[in-house]
Amino acid sequence: MNSFGSKFRFTTFGESHGRALGCIVDGVPAGITVDEDFIQAEMDRRKPGQNAYATPRKESDKVEILSGVFEGKTTGTPISMVIFNENQKSRDYTNVKDLFRPGHADFTYFEKYGIRDYRGGGRSSARETAARVAAGAIAKLLLKELGIEVLSGICEIDGIKSSKEDFDFAKTSEIFSLDKDKEEFQKDAITKAKKEHNSVGGVALVKVKNSPAGLGEPLYHRLDAQIANAMMGINAVKAIEIGDGTEASAKKGLENNDQMRADGFKTNHCGGILGGISTGADIDVKVYFKPTPSIFLKQETVDINNNEVNCELKGRHDPCVAIRGSVVAESMMSLVLADMLLLNMSSKLENIKKVYN
Amino acid sequence: MNSFGSKFRFTTFGESHGRALGCIVDGVPAGITVDEDFIQAEMDRRKPGQNAYATPRKESDKVEILSGVFEGKTTGTPISMVIFNENQKSRDYTNVKDLFRPGHADFTYFEKYGIRDYRGGGRSSARETAARVAAGAIAKLLLKELGIEVLSGICEIDGIKSSKEDFDFAKTSEIFSLDKDKEEFQKDAITKAKKEHNSVGGVALVKVKNSPAGLGEPLYHRLDAQIANAMMGINAVKAIEIGDGTEASAKKGLENNDQMRADGFKTNHCGGILGGISTGADIDVKVYFKPTPSIFLKQETVDINNNEVNCELKGRHDPCVAIRGSVVAESMMSLVLADMLLLNMSSKLENIKKVYN
Amino acid sequence: MNSFGSKFRFTTFGESHGRALGCIVDGVPAGITVDEDFIQAEMDRRKPGQNAYATPRKESDKVEILSGVFEGKTTGTPISMVIFNENQKSRDYTNVKDLFRPGHADFTYFEKYGIRDYRGGGRSSARETAARVAAGAIAKLLLKELGIEVLSGICEIDGIKSSKEDFDFAKTSEIFSLDKDKEEFQKDAITKAKKEHNSVGGVALVKVKNSPAGLGEPLYHRLDAQIANAMMGINAVKAIEIGDGTEASAKKGLENNDQMRADGFKTNHCGGILGGISTGADIDVKVYFKPTPSIFLKQETVDINNNEVNCELKGRHDPCVAIRGSVVAESMMSLVLADMLLLNMSSKLENIKKVYN
Amino acid sequence: MNSFGSKFRFTTFGESHGRALGCIVDGVPAGITVDEDFIQAEMDRRKPGQNAYATPRKESDKVEILSGVFEGKTTGTPISMVIFNENQKSRDYTNVKDLFRPGHADFTYFEKYGIRDYRGGGRSSARETAARVAAGAIAKLLLKELGIEVLSGICEIDGIKSSKEDFDFAKTSEIFSLDKDKEEFQKDAITKAKKEHNSVGGVALVKVKNSPAGLGEPLYHRLDAQIANAMMGINAVKAIEIGDGTEASAKKGLENNDQMRADGFKTNHCGGILGGISTGADIDVKVYFKPTPSIFLKQETVDINNNEVNCELKGRHDPCVAIRGSVVAESMMSLVLADMLLLNMSSKLENIKKVYN
Repeated sequence: MNSFGSKFRFTTFGESHGRALGCIVDGVPAGITVDEDFIQAEMDRRKPGQNAYATPRKESDKVEILSGVFEGKTTGTPISMVIFNENQKSRDYTNVKDLFRPGHADFTYFEKYGIRDYRGGGRSSARETAARVAAGAIAKLLLKELGIEVLSGICEIDGIKSSKEDFDFAKTSEIFSLDKDKEEFQKDAITKAKKEHNSVGGVALVKVKNSPAGLGEPLYHRLDAQIANAMMGINAVKAIEIGDGTEASAKKGLENNDQMRADGFKTNHCGGILGGISTGADIDVKVYFKPTPSIFLKQETVDINNNEVNCELKGRHDPCVAIRGSVVAESMMSLVLADMLLLNMSSKLENIKKVYN
Repeated sequence: MNSFGSKFRFTTFGESHGRALGCIVDGVPAGITVDEDFIQAEMDRRKPGQNAYATPRKESDKVEILSGVFEGKTTGTPISMVIFNENQKSRDYTNVKDLFRPGHADFTYFEKYGIRDYRGGGRSSARETAARVAAGAIAKLLLKELGIEVLSGICEIDGIKSSKEDFDFAKTSEIFSLDKDKEEFQKDAITKAKKEHNSVGGVALVKVKNSPAGLGEPLYHRLDAQIANAMMGINAVKAIEIGDGTEASAKKGLENNDQMRADGFKTNHCGGILGGISTGADIDVKVYFKPTPSIFLKQETVDINNNEVNCELKGRHDPCVAIRGSVVAESMMSLVLADMLLLNMSSKLENIKKVYN
Repeated sequence: MNSFGSKFRFTTFGESHGRALGCIVDGVPAGITVDEDFIQAEMDRRKPGQNAYATPRKESDKVEILSGVFEGKTTGTPISMVIFNENQKSRDYTNVKDLFRPGHADFTYFEKYGIRDYRGGGRSSARETAARVAAGAIAKLLLKELGIEVLSGICEIDGIKSSKEDFDFAKTSEIFSLDKDKEEFQKDAITKAKKEHNSVGGVALVKVKNSPAGLGEPLYHRLDAQIANAMMGINAVKAIEIGDGTEASAKKGLENNDQMRADGFKTNHCGGILGGISTGADIDVKVYFKPTPSIFLKQETVDINNNEVNCELKGRHDPCVAIRGSVVAESMMSLVLADMLLLNMSSKLENIKKVYN
Repeated sequence: MNSFGSKFRFTTFGESHGRALGCIVDGVPAGITVDEDFIQAEMDRRKPGQNAYATPRKESDKVEILSGVFEGKTTGTPISMVIFNENQKSRDYTNVKDLFRPGHADFTYFEKYGIRDYRGGGRSSARETAARVAAGAIAKLLLKELGIEVLSGICEIDGIKSSKEDFDFAKTSEIFSLDKDKEEFQKDAITKAKKEHNSVGGVALVKVKNSPAGLGEPLYHRLDAQIANAMMGINAVKAIEIGDGTEASAKKGLENNDQMRADGFKTNHCGGILGGISTGADIDVKVYFKPTPSIFLKQETVDINNNEVNCELKGRHDPCVAIRGSVVAESMMSLVLADMLLLNMSSKLENIKKVYN
């Protein structure tokens, strides 16, 4: 329920305005060198309050490792990480305490649990994704040992598409834009929406380089299915594409098939996955985020007693959740791959003999 | 690996040209009336050889229940169903035995398992989905008891979109088209591609009516994530949208939020799911299928020794996998919902007391 | 629920007097040679009707493989096996239809499911264990590839203990006795109970030879915990011991600890498992079976309407379930080991590099 | 791997001498009143340093709840609890750093992970069980809401058996003895072993009162199997009995069967479980602990380079792990029952209709 993955599995806990949030990462192989600075650097990419395109909420998101690491190496035991909330008591919720904010999980959580944790979204807040990034950093430490790289960037904001896939530029861009020439327009769209007390949507591209072929468990723990599971489980995501995605449905077979030569696939329409299993080519995934539901305009809603009321939110919010969301998507991809790497080890008798003989 | 679901779980077995395929459905509550004719009717919707828009392979797809049903009711024990292949020995594979068919899982399965089952795709064949439809029919028997309805139809073929959502018409259409006015054009596109030895893509719409609010387990077994998992795990699917899907990313927050009045949501942009949990409104999912990879045109590929060869397939194939695939998507949705219904029962102490007091 | 194992997982279906029973074994590595005669030989060791010490019910227990094997090798896809019941309609149940047989699961299944499958115990019948033996045979094929051997025999019947552990003799004994000198007394105890329309209990010893050290997942999927899980889940089992078992509790630390020398452990009080992980020494497990609950003496019970009635069973039953049960225990041990072998592969980064580099 | 349970699931982390240990309890229904004093009182029953019969290591074992509780009630989200180690740096490990302590998991963990965390047993230390008691306390809060009670006590130490089952006395006894008349002898046995630098074994009895009938998932998540799994997974446990346990194997069927009358079972030889499902009678389980492996006598062992060495341990240890272990066994039983209660809710269509209609 609050866990993800089979063999490399993480479980998160924590609410937006509770005492702390964190995770346990289980199934991490022993012997991986743990670079704590790298883990913190991953956290910092996602953390709020860094520029005008993110929520001004200030959190240092300092992660503490409580277990599973000894003398700088993983021990094979569960790695627990905790992030204490610092800024959780900064405002009062009187005006939203009993009403369901449009576009949020307030109504559905109340229907499910019969209880209302009105503090900033509680468990359904995007703040929980800090724990996913911490877990993802552990996954990346494993991927690095095998030379696998996971990258991400923003390929569209408010309908303005990036024409390039420049991941180096994305690293330096405040909005992680993949296209230097479009970044300014994308930023302007955000700024404009913010001024109007509104918000914008966006799309993240996640790419895996140097993945081994053969990853993915058929038929219900396929690599593509598990990626879809991981990505659609990120707050605000409403669509997922792999490879050519929706465009593949408008193409003919000949055009869409990736033909092969001795040095590999001639094209990569399939986005590095065939029959749910990695081909060894780049894995390409697009993740579509809706506009932030928290806006500062008047909206109609009901309260927990089903009285019709107006809602005018205050507070601090990202004008475009896709930006920080792209880091979460990259983390989830890393976690999926780490899991698939471990799961796939026993696919052939030959591999088993390598380990036991 | 070959199982799906947590509490209402099914496991499938079987290959395209093996002796039989089938499934075990586990976790089915006791006391559900089993209408075997209904199960067979579901199978018949998916079965091949019924018209010019599907593969001519003839299979009666007669399902036999081996366990779990006694005196016409489910007993709570696992329901095993088997479908014997009838038409599995009809041709020889000499021309494809050692080569990787473009767009297929041949290469990736070989990379993963080091073994090549060249008979019609083996386990990765869409034939396996017959077992999913059988399992889905059991799920539907449960959903019916609670008044929940799952529907599907084709909303796009070869780029030709349906403008309507007429599920009644879809039931009568040979291609399950949702739009009477577009059906002819969609059929023509298929016929044309078939004549050219090519294939087309398509899109299925799946809709759930009368779902209870509150379904979905946060945060990693969310309803939306599990739907994405289920749908992306269907052969040939490359994209998934929930509600407004990719379009949501180009909208502003005010436009995209579903505001509420005392009688419910004013709009349903979110497709019936907020924060991963059902709102009680219709659940809307679009499933994008790539064009059938099996085409009868010359393609470049390699064989298992990495020699470059040309490939010209023969045999019997669906010119558009989306059509029969829509029935599979509907089945998978039914299975996801059945699982979520059972999982959600323990969300509140109040429910537990209802059962035990 | 009806599945066992994480990575090498099997799921069974079927009832005592239904059409068929069987299993799906999932997670079997590709490339294992499948000796069907061996699988059938394993079935034959458990099958009923072979001598005076087992039920006279005649079943050939012929197993058919429906999937997952191609050209004599496992393909990595799920192996489905089915055993059709032959002797399921041989008698009528009028006299037990509505009453709860003492010592059986009749009452508890009725409480759980609200439905009564009165045909020979339905799903709770020991007949289901045929499917476990079929699955266990597949596990053994994997263990053989690694040189691991699993053995079993009877070490006690009706309180008469075997003083030896002669597994070669056990193979030839009709009651799988481990002690040639005690076999006759043990047989006599069974014969006597049978004449008195009563039944006897017994104890099986299961031993693993040549297990690698390091198997077992801490802390909740430990090798010892999973063995206990597997064994206590066999019908009629009421106690489990590992190594010295209950006797360890009456010993002092110095006496119980297994000290070490360069060539290994000096003793094996721990039964080959320390901290839940295999030491590489023989794994020793004792499995205690209660006497068969089906006896032909008058007993007091109630019917499904809670009317007090007497119960006099008729039919065919094993006078001592421990005998055929020992084969099931051996199968379950093989399945646990196969699972642990696969799970343990990713415990060290070093192993992962062996597979991927 | 470090998780237990399906629907009411907990995951623990932490090492004996690391910074902290703790757990995440997932699947807890919303709306349960959380009595933090009760949780701490449960911790205090297990905590070390309380009298002469336990290790003198001082730990306050103060548990902090980090998430999942709001305004004194569970919210349905994961409950994270952490216990910071206070006394973890008190001694040096020079004399045991590289050698395998007999009877401990040192050797097997090294074989599995290739890494040695020499600080007090690391993850395999009984200190981890503090997290199980914290999780068990949450389970008990749920059981209380349904009137189910779980009790435990010591029924044997160093071979000295308790003749009574006085759970009220056990609560007041420093060694949780179930028999006032035997307590002194049991204490003396411990004191004597301690003086001799040795240790003793013991047996705990765990009893459940007022369990509903029908709990337990057939066939591989049976109540008895899951209890065996839970108990054998506790450090130092080497045998498990349910009901009459090993004695059942020496009895005849007529003697062992529990006959029924309108007011229930006439006897309870089966220990409250038939066919893996609860009968509604008391559940009785005996858990056998080996003597503490940490003793202060000279023992033979090897170091990590397989050099033969002598080992003389120093430090602080329980002379009889069964005592504090009984609290852990009681906690594990509570956790198993909570899980089974939630899992069983969907066994009948009738229950599902109660929740959704």
